[in-house]
Amino acid sequence: MPREYDRRNLDFILKEVFNYGALCQYPRYADYAPDMFDMVLDSAEQIAERHLRPHFVDADRKQAELVNGTVQVHHSVEAYVKEMGDSGMIGATFSYEKGGQQLPSIVGGAHEFIRGAANNSIVMFTGLSNGAAHLIASFGSEELKQAFVPNMLAGKWTGTMCLTEPQAGSSLNDVSTTAKDLGNGTYSIKGQKVFISGGDNHFSENIIHLVLARLEGAPKGTKGISLFVVPKRRQENGQWVSNEVTSMGLYHKMGQKATPALHLSFGDKGDSIGYLVGEPNKGLMYMFQMMNEARLGVGMGGAYIASAAYHFSKQYASERSQGRKLTNKDPETPPTLIQNHPDVQRMLYYQKSIMEGAMGLLFQCFLWEDLSKCLTGDEQKEAQMLLDLMTPVAKTYPAEQGTLAVNQGLQVLGGYGYTEDFPLEQMARDVRIMSIYEGTTGIHGLTLLGRGIPSEQGKAVQALVKLIQADIAQGMTHETTKPYAEMLANELASLNKVTMHKLSKASQPDVFLADSTLYMELFGLVVVAWQWLKQGNVAVRNLESSEKSFYQDKIHTMKFFYHYEVPKALGLTKRLLDDEILTIFE
Amino acid sequence: MPREYDRRNLDFILKEVFNYGALCQYPRYADYAPDMFDMVLDSAEQIAERHLRPHFVDADRKQAELVNGTVQVHHSVEAYVKEMGDSGMIGATFSYEKGGQQLPSIVGGAHEFIRGAANNSIVMFTGLSNGAAHLIASFGSEELKQAFVPNMLAGKWTGTMCLTEPQAGSSLNDVSTTAKDLGNGTYSIKGQKVFISGGDNHFSENIIHLVLARLEGAPKGTKGISLFVVPKRRQENGQWVSNEVTSMGLYHKMGQKATPALHLSFGDKGDSIGYLVGEPNKGLMYMFQMMNEARLGVGMGGAYIASAAYHFSKQYASERSQGRKLTNKDPETPPTLIQNHPDVQRMLYYQKSIMEGAMGLLFQCFLWEDLSKCLTGDEQKEAQMLLDLMTPVAKTYPAEQGTLAVNQGLQVLGGYGYTEDFPLEQMARDVRIMSIYEGTTGIHGLTLLGRGIPSEQGKAVQALVKLIQADIAQGMTHETTKPYAEMLANELASLNKVTMHKLSKASQPDVFLADSTLYMELFGLVVVAWQWLKQGNVAVRNLESSEKSFYQDKIHTMKFFYHYEVPKALGLTKRLLDDEILTIFE
Repeated sequence: MPREYDRRNLDFILKEVFNYGALCQYPRYADYAPDMFDMVLDSAEQIAERHLRPHFVDADRKQAELVNGTVQVHHSVEAYVKEMGDSGMIGATFSYEKGGQQLPSIVGGAHEFIRGAANNSIVMFTGLSNGAAHLIASFGSEELKQAFVPNMLAGKWTGTMCLTEPQAGSSLNDVSTTAKDLGNGTYSIKGQKVFISGGDNHFSENIIHLVLARLEGAPKGTKGISLFVVPKRRQENGQWVSNEVTSMGLYHKMGQKATPALHLSFGDKGDSIGYLVGEPNKGLMYMFQMMNEARLGVGMGGAYIASAAYHFSKQYASERSQGRKLTNKDPETPPTLIQNHPDVQRMLYYQKSIMEGAMGLLFQCFLWEDLSKCLTGDEQKEAQMLLDLMTPVAKTYPAEQGTLAVNQGLQVLGGYGYTEDFPLEQMARDVRIMSIYEGTTGIHGLTLLGRGIPSEQGKAVQALVKLIQADIAQGMTHETTKPYAEMLANELASLNKVTMHKLSKASQPDVFLADSTLYMELFGLVVVAWQWLKQGNVAVRNLESSEKSFYQDKIHTMKFFYHYEVPKALGLTKRLLDDEILTIFE
Repeated sequence: MPREYDRRNLDFILKEVFNYGALCQYPRYADYAPDMFDMVLDSAEQIAERHLRPHFVDADRKQAELVNGTVQVHHSVEAYVKEMGDSGMIGATFSYEKGGQQLPSIVGGAHEFIRGAANNSIVMFTGLSNGAAHLIASFGSEELKQAFVPNMLAGKWTGTMCLTEPQAGSSLNDVSTTAKDLGNGTYSIKGQKVFISGGDNHFSENIIHLVLARLEGAPKGTKGISLFVVPKRRQENGQWVSNEVTSMGLYHKMGQKATPALHLSFGDKGDSIGYLVGEPNKGLMYMFQMMNEARLGVGMGGAYIASAAYHFSKQYASERSQGRKLTNKDPETPPTLIQNHPDVQRMLYYQKSIMEGAMGLLFQCFLWEDLSKCLTGDEQKEAQMLLDLMTPVAKTYPAEQGTLAVNQGLQVLGGYGYTEDFPLEQMARDVRIMSIYEGTTGIHGLTLLGRGIPSEQGKAVQALVKLIQADIAQGMTHETTKPYAEMLANELASLNKVTMHKLSKASQPDVFLADSTLYMELFGLVVVAWQWLKQGNVAVRNLESSEKSFYQDKIHTMKFFYHYEVPKALGLTKRLLDDEILTIFE
């Protein structure tokens, strides 16, 4: 299989667009020098090479299965998790006091991108351990931290997040798992959770579930939800005993088959002990930390699978001969490479423009996350606001558009793309989950338009617009980027008009939010157009460099995005300004 | 599983929109009365009930496998093919002289729709037998007809079409399978064919391959291709012997797993005998008959899988409670059905508007096919021209948009949609092939813009525009449809502008055709908008009937298509009028 991502492009985004080395000037990251970040990414390539790429196909064909109450996962997972633990990468982005290496999130994200492009399904195990351990490290008592975090970061124990219940789905309001105070600082947990990724495996010594549940007498709705640590095994009189977390069933999924999704039962016979994290009834607030981290992770999933699909289909198009150029009608001449057909080039640039634009958006978010930890006062607040506003977009755009991009990659291969002989059909199955994980696209549309945009009188959007306008101003200074800076300015004005129109309906929540998924689509398109202008602004400054062809292709891809993708804003805008209501019934 | 299609809607399209009963007034169909068509469709429901629906899941999980040189297909296929043969439905649309029942194609298409919605993969076996037998019946000698057609129509033997070769893919120019004249009226066939659907099975007594090959000394390119019947077994001295058609391998596909796709080798040791169909070097012309029939069949595949996905997800949304209405913030109230969320309604109407619009386009084509056999002179010519122009569109729109629609159906189910516990994930895998079968979307875009539109100085398009304008004129006469008739008039004018712009580039074939896939997308959108106006025009005349709610929902869906789908024409038009070339190099 050809390399699934382009290190040169990753370096371009990290170094030239976002200048992540500048983070080292803040005290938080002062122990690092920029070239150490390179070494971190090199290590990701080694892990991908040794533990991930070789098992991409096999771990799909031999999917995880529930056997005698225990889930047997693909043999490669154990070695991968161990390697990640040994190399200190599971919690590398945690602060020193939380047991991490205080690595910037943008570097951690790049490490994940490289691993995920090589094997999107297996990497979920360590992503979940990271999120679960971070919750305990952030909000748990000293005792909980010591009891759980070190073994999780070492890769000995894995972690999960247990939110969804059979009857509630996306509606966390309706979580009904109960926690009864046993009076000794522990709680008896009882309830069922579904779709728990990594919910069981045969190899780790323990599995640490982070579970949302209700204390007795807690208020209904989200204000009565608390967070508990519920391990698969607990210590009792020096012995490890079962904590009555039962695997009721394993979902057979369309893709991502290396990561089992479990239906778990807690304390069916009353013998599942949980430990409260932080204060009672604040569980959802805590869990939002893990959810938001996971959301960027899911957006990354859309982007790195799209990266793998792009690079594979591009390679295929450069090797496969078929047909003749449109300008050549002579059947006596030999067939041409399919990369010489304009429609194939369209499918390749479509993928590249979606994927590299999505990468821009994602690494922008990771940078904001890092800056929110380095800056102070209003600057800190702004970075956090921008991250909060953009997280649902950075989850949704790569998921939705990445799914379409991967399917165009499959299309490049024609009939072969539909067969198991090539990895595209698996990538298409794998990527499809990204629009569902961690809140469906519909949920994130509601979050963006219903909460993100109106919050604090639109302060976050205003901050975003200021940033975009600065890049437009820069784009106006070069003849190559000027037309695109002008287009972006128009799109921004048009988006603003749509936003104002929608906000004018805010007194009728159903009318206001009815098309929020389409609002999300438009918003994502405009911010990715912004990211492309950012990348174009950097590229035009380097056209005289020795890597001229790399920068030329960047500019070409930016142009493609503006000429082929940005026009889609017209239809979305028209619909979003149209007041004909067709989806609300009494 | 809920019913996968709505008979009331099918009847609406067949009877009220296209008045298929009127075909009985032509001599060709004079033996039929309209109520006999109902009985034919009833029989399709019985076949679906007995032989198709029960095996939809199982035939996917236990996919066809190549065992000791023979492909073992799912046990249900044999009984299905037998039933279709026994009921005379395999070649029912053939004329009497070709051994059929001279059933109108529009009725045959509806029969197929019902079967395909119940089990899209198994029905391919009889679809292929139909197409292969029709080729022999249309162009073969009397001897060939008698030798092959009756057993194929009886379901004793099955058929295939063998076009694609490993080195040539979509480029039939480069077919290299050879046929050596043995002097006794037979030919020695040698070569390899790939992706042969139904290329082998364990149960039928014989398999009749229709194979494209080159006679010795034939010209290069498509003008040197001849068509041969190559059976799996041939008779020799009263014995059935192997005709050296070898199953080299079976492709494991993403979906449609009941129908095996084979890599076949013909005459590796020189012992594969073929029989020439019609005249030498005219094979591709003959094969186009089967390909065009198959293309409508593939378009149907997009539509009937989308139908199954729509009806399943609609049913789910009417049973599954989750969350509260956007206008209700009280967590004490019970959860509401997800069909009460506007975004879920949007996903349902999206599917319905795509699928029922695609059905309109497909049955319009079947009607043209029938009329081309009934009418005479210019009217006959026009029906044929319209069918030829629209066949690639009726293949592509349902395939591309149907795939998106099915994926929205999956999305309605959230996490459950991604699991094998519900049929949506299988439908999403199955439908994905439709954009590849029988010419990829890219190939059909080239056909439409490069051949269909310019042919005979645009006569076919002019005829189409006349039909559309008649429906616009009718739409203008009712206040409900008037705004949509006006929108369609605008879209038609805009499409005309795009077409003229593209034709002005015809002297540079690569520039002219570079975005032909997007031209196809726009063209499909406009003609489906036309079909929706047609359906709306009928519905508004029936609003006072006892079935008011059916007609109201039709009008609602028409409105949805115009308010949500038609605006997408804006972005496509902008791109297609934009002369920035980004997909042609050197």
